Amino acid sequence: VGIVGVGNNTSALVQGVYRYSQPEGINIATERQEGILFPKLCNYEIKDITFSVAFDVDSRKIGRDLGTAIYSEPNKYPRIFEEDLKTGTIVQPAPALDGVPEFLEDIVEVDQVSKPSSEELDSYFDFCVEKIHLSKTDVLVNFLPSGSHKATQFFARAAAKGHAAFINCIPSPVVNSPEILELFEKENLPLLGDDLESQFGSSLIHRTLLQTLETRGLEIMRSYQVNLGGNADFKNLQFRSDAKQQSKKKAISTISSTPDRINIVPSGGFLPVLGDNKIGYLMIEGRGWLGMPVNIDLKLSVQDSSNAAGVVIDLIRIAKGAIDQGLSGYVSLSYYFKNPLDRKLDTDEAIEVIRSFNSDTSA
Amino acid sequence: VGIVGVGNNTSALVQGVYRYSQPEGINIATERQEGILFPKLCNYEIKDITFSVAFDVDSRKIGRDLGTAIYSEPNKYPRIFEEDLKTGTIVQPAPALDGVPEFLEDIVEVDQVSKPSSEELDSYFDFCVEKIHLSKTDVLVNFLPSGSHKATQFFARAAAKGHAAFINCIPSPVVNSPEILELFEKENLPLLGDDLESQFGSSLIHRTLLQTLETRGLEIMRSYQVNLGGNADFKNLQFRSDAKQQSKKKAISTISSTPDRINIVPSGGFLPVLGDNKIGYLMIEGRGWLGMPVNIDLKLSVQDSSNAAGVVIDLIRIAKGAIDQGLSGYVSLSYYFKNPLDRKLDTDEAIEVIRSFNSDTSA
Amino acid sequence: VGIVGVGNNTSALVQGVYRYSQPEGINIATERQEGILFPKLCNYEIKDITFSVAFDVDSRKIGRDLGTAIYSEPNKYPRIFEEDLKTGTIVQPAPALDGVPEFLEDIVEVDQVSKPSSEELDSYFDFCVEKIHLSKTDVLVNFLPSGSHKATQFFARAAAKGHAAFINCIPSPVVNSPEILELFEKENLPLLGDDLESQFGSSLIHRTLLQTLETRGLEIMRSYQVNLGGNADFKNLQFRSDAKQQSKKKAISTISSTPDRINIVPSGGFLPVLGDNKIGYLMIEGRGWLGMPVNIDLKLSVQDSSNAAGVVIDLIRIAKGAIDQGLSGYVSLSYYFKNPLDRKLDTDEAIEVIRSFNSDTSA
Amino acid sequence: VGIVGVGNNTSALVQGVYRYSQPEGINIATERQEGILFPKLCNYEIKDITFSVAFDVDSRKIGRDLGTAIYSEPNKYPRIFEEDLKTGTIVQPAPALDGVPEFLEDIVEVDQVSKPSSEELDSYFDFCVEKIHLSKTDVLVNFLPSGSHKATQFFARAAAKGHAAFINCIPSPVVNSPEILELFEKENLPLLGDDLESQFGSSLIHRTLLQTLETRGLEIMRSYQVNLGGNADFKNLQFRSDAKQQSKKKAISTISSTPDRINIVPSGGFLPVLGDNKIGYLMIEGRGWLGMPVNIDLKLSVQDSSNAAGVVIDLIRIAKGAIDQGLSGYVSLSYYFKNPLDRKLDTDEAIEVIRSFNSDTSA
Repeated sequence: VGIVGVGNNTSALVQGVYRYSQPEGINIATERQEGILFPKLCNYEIKDITFSVAFDVDSRKIGRDLGTAIYSEPNKYPRIFEEDLKTGTIVQPAPALDGVPEFLEDIVEVDQVSKPSSEELDSYFDFCVEKIHLSKTDVLVNFLPSGSHKATQFFARAAAKGHAAFINCIPSPVVNSPEILELFEKENLPLLGDDLESQFGSSLIHRTLLQTLETRGLEIMRSYQVNLGGNADFKNLQFRSDAKQQSKKKAISTISSTPDRINIVPSGGFLPVLGDNKIGYLMIEGRGWLGMPVNIDLKLSVQDSSNAAGVVIDLIRIAKGAIDQGLSGYVSLSYYFKNPLDRKLDTDEAIEVIRSFNSDTSA
Repeated sequence: VGIVGVGNNTSALVQGVYRYSQPEGINIATERQEGILFPKLCNYEIKDITFSVAFDVDSRKIGRDLGTAIYSEPNKYPRIFEEDLKTGTIVQPAPALDGVPEFLEDIVEVDQVSKPSSEELDSYFDFCVEKIHLSKTDVLVNFLPSGSHKATQFFARAAAKGHAAFINCIPSPVVNSPEILELFEKENLPLLGDDLESQFGSSLIHRTLLQTLETRGLEIMRSYQVNLGGNADFKNLQFRSDAKQQSKKKAISTISSTPDRINIVPSGGFLPVLGDNKIGYLMIEGRGWLGMPVNIDLKLSVQDSSNAAGVVIDLIRIAKGAIDQGLSGYVSLSYYFKNPLDRKLDTDEAIEVIRSFNSDTSA
Repeated sequence: VGIVGVGNNTSALVQGVYRYSQPEGINIATERQEGILFPKLCNYEIKDITFSVAFDVDSRKIGRDLGTAIYSEPNKYPRIFEEDLKTGTIVQPAPALDGVPEFLEDIVEVDQVSKPSSEELDSYFDFCVEKIHLSKTDVLVNFLPSGSHKATQFFARAAAKGHAAFINCIPSPVVNSPEILELFEKENLPLLGDDLESQFGSSLIHRTLLQTLETRGLEIMRSYQVNLGGNADFKNLQFRSDAKQQSKKKAISTISSTPDRINIVPSGGFLPVLGDNKIGYLMIEGRGWLGMPVNIDLKLSVQDSSNAAGVVIDLIRIAKGAIDQGLSGYVSLSYYFKNPLDRKLDTDEAIEVIRSFNSDTSA
Repeated sequence: VGIVGVGNNTSALVQGVYRYSQPEGINIATERQEGILFPKLCNYEIKDITFSVAFDVDSRKIGRDLGTAIYSEPNKYPRIFEEDLKTGTIVQPAPALDGVPEFLEDIVEVDQVSKPSSEELDSYFDFCVEKIHLSKTDVLVNFLPSGSHKATQFFARAAAKGHAAFINCIPSPVVNSPEILELFEKENLPLLGDDLESQFGSSLIHRTLLQTLETRGLEIMRSYQVNLGGNADFKNLQFRSDAKQQSKKKAISTISSTPDRINIVPSGGFLPVLGDNKIGYLMIEGRGWLGMPVNIDLKLSVQDSSNAAGVVIDLIRIAKGAIDQGLSGYVSLSYYFKNPLDRKLDTDEAIEVIRSFNSDTSA
């Protein structure tokens, strides 16, 4: 698997793959703990995953082993291993195509090599394709910060040309871009996205509670969801929240008959004291029998980046399983994305779909 | 329909039936609002429900029209209609078989007629059977306070003998009592219970959230649920909480693999300032990817008695539908009870079951 | 009293003055309820307050009676009186000196007359001075939206020239501007500000709790405060939060020894479903005996604009009292402002100060 | 100092005294952290405190070194030191005068020697007096569980006869018992109590917030406080809550003009999952300008026993200081007790009082 963007999510993913590949880690995973639903999925265990290539724009990460880069500033995900990991994979420079917004200038240190002129861009593209191709990367995971539209499309095209499936974890349109979707169909490669839904986040809880109210026949009068965090992604989100808000709203509106009574704030504040911790506040006001009020106030606290890793660990194996089965184009895993092509499944249906992948490949 | 116990739940039920039987109320119900899932169920609309008989022990209620008694002390459910309702049904005395605990003495005023000697009890039973029978009551709903074991069994037997189906809304064993179940089977009458699950209460939300965590592969580390209220039922519950706690625990434990990590307090405090309002506090601590913590803190506020009415309105019609279909004995509506005979269904399955009743009878 | 900015705060103030001037309203005020600390202050009762002049930029307010304009869009403060009030004071046009930011364009409708060219500005100034002067306005209250730096200075100067005291309720520097302060000293007029502290808001609660921890010897480890609202001021704040954040931070830091461990977000989100309601979330993590953790989670919900009115009602009378006493320049009421010139007093000291005004003038 | 009741509070106190007497602990204390307000008080530092005698009824504690007994079941306070402490003081048997309630039978193991017949009681009393006297105990601290009325009076008399000051940390009347107060006056010994107010607990926060509302002129409409915990004291409190509730109510009512609108539940539930953790939920509904609502919802989480230790550490030194000064009878430290003889001081006054002790003795 290859990685675009060596941030907190990548840190969680890499550290987790190492931990759950160790003998005692396998036991933990097998006993169905710590967020791992499928110790074995599409014939692959966690220890079958290796990191083949990684890209980033930050000069503190480029040129280092991925196992060292994940601990570099401004990453804040907790360190599980005392010593840096040795993955053997060196972080490659990525082009900073979307610029670095003013508010991130004191956080991100963009390397000179990540600022190619427009003439150099074509050879940069070839460079990335080659890296993906030569490293025999099966699946490229996009962990860039929200709002990186151009870079996301750049790497989706690079994956297609470099013969890798692509998993788009951010709101920028990839499966929702007809050209890119067509590209993957043509290249006979799977494409998954857009915008990863956390394993256990505000959107999931919000949707679950709203659904429970509606199932019981209560009317939703007003509701809001506000998220707070302290990592770089949150600072980014505060200013580039449009795509995220749309995506989040869509994730909710599929179940609610009154989406205009629901307000969602993807990033209500960049709070450095929170670090990689993420706080979500939900409020729901409903009305039941004889118009009597029902009120819910909820606070959710999660490790932001763990939440992504727990889902991506399945998607990587499903993407590889899809390749093994010769599937191409859009892979329907709508449960795991806030903005899929088709309608969102509910939990039971989603697990059915995954089980079907599982059995198809194990056959 | 007949009623045992003219408390807040009965007030909510009677007022609601009147409201939703009025022309503008029918519209509200039809537009699927205010907690009414089925404007028509088993061929019955809400306006088809009439109150045929009612029993209580309190001297402020006995001998009065049910439409006046529902507004008597110590009831606290809000008054929807300015004037008392005229149901034409006079509240009959019920025997206070379980005594009135010391802590309720300043709240409940037990009428002399409700304290029969043991010799008088048999004729009291005949009196109640006759009242049920002569009023042509189809369904008797048990809204007695928690802990009224003897009175519940008394009225279940009276219903069986008086040819009425019985809906047991409290934890005292009725469907869980083999003798009583056999009695209803013999009399060819439907029996529903035990312990009503609120339309939208702490148990539902708690179960939904715990289930969501488990479905996503997170481990539940510890969790609690504490309920607070200010009506007589809550004062009662604080001292007679054993049956309720068992019933609540069972409602949760069907979905959780670690029930010993979950503490439930049915009545954490009798708070007069709350009136008929009910507050539930939930806390869930889980663990996900790399052991990272997930915490949920939730406060739920509902009108206690509205919550019961919204469910009973369906059960009454289903019980009547079951009679129409000639069903007898235990009616499997496990979704609506905390302590049913069979395993609890999830929401989708439950709605399937109700739909099946609906279509069977409408055929 | 004259008003600059006919928004929700003004609506709360005008409606309150009318209500508490009616016979039954006086009783409410006298019984020390509803947020009125001083039924009589500096010899003035609430009914002594009349509205002499008002300015706004919105075409839906200009030219109307103030008692009608307070109910115009986009105001959201609840309507207390069924019919519009008749104040006899017509809202005058104000110059939109700070422009209307893009995000408010669909909310505010700036009248043509409020867009003077730079040449017309001088005569506009004279017009405003004349309005203040001829209406014999004693005190001009600045209720402009946050970020209106130029307009605030414009009206402060206009007040000085029109012989009115000035109360600056927003963060823009007025008492913190040496030139303007000097101007008021020269004109022998009182000046109060900057940035009103709500009667009962997040900053007060946050400061009180942090202070309680420190007084008990506990160490503050980390803390945050996030505010949410749905009125135009909140939409405004989300984009113009810098001055507000500084002002809020200063309000907290005077009591905390570790201000860098405290994050404050003045506007964590514009949530239209909230209307004029304001929500504040606070979190405090401390450490006590043997390093054991102490955690506080708090949710505060208030009517945003009521909060301002309850304080301004005192400040207006104090400002008038200061005029009566011949005080000029900065009036030290540091308790009521987030960004005063001198150190913030605690509650007891503050009440002493007000009492002193009270007795001085009643002498 | 001598101790009655070797529970969680004693564990926190003993471990803390050891920790803050070590060189690095002294630094922590001096830098005014971790809840220690006065590194030096009445001329005494923390390291000047030694444990001279200890009493308990549990067979798992009697006969062991106090430094081992504090880690015995059912204590749940966290272990700070890997190895047991060596205090040199052996836990002595105490008489179980108040019986052990049924609900504690599976938690407490009362030693045979702690069940004296009524004839043996006199010699038991002499035994305790002798232990106190011979160990030269200056101050005896009562850390018995709530509801231990007889045992508290027993040990208060034993202290008086054994020439030790007495600090009563529970609601049982000691300073509120005229006979016992007289006894201490006669014996020329200081007496402190009743019912310790936690260093940072629900009562303090509740009182602070209610006071803030009233100071700002808002009316309190309704409010509640519910406490949850998982240690033996909480199980005890749930059944013996009367004295505690009175004491807590008194602590609040001194500041509120509407005590009947405030409900307090000292123990809303015994939740084993919480261990020595204590949760407090507060709700306050107020009304301000134009009757607009103000709502506060708060969750407080503290280490229960740390909270007591942080206050007792001061009281021990003040009691000793009072002896040094020759003070006898009631020592007015109303700030630190929920049920003192005189009116409760506010924080500033309280610190003045302590400062006065400090300087008197250092003179």
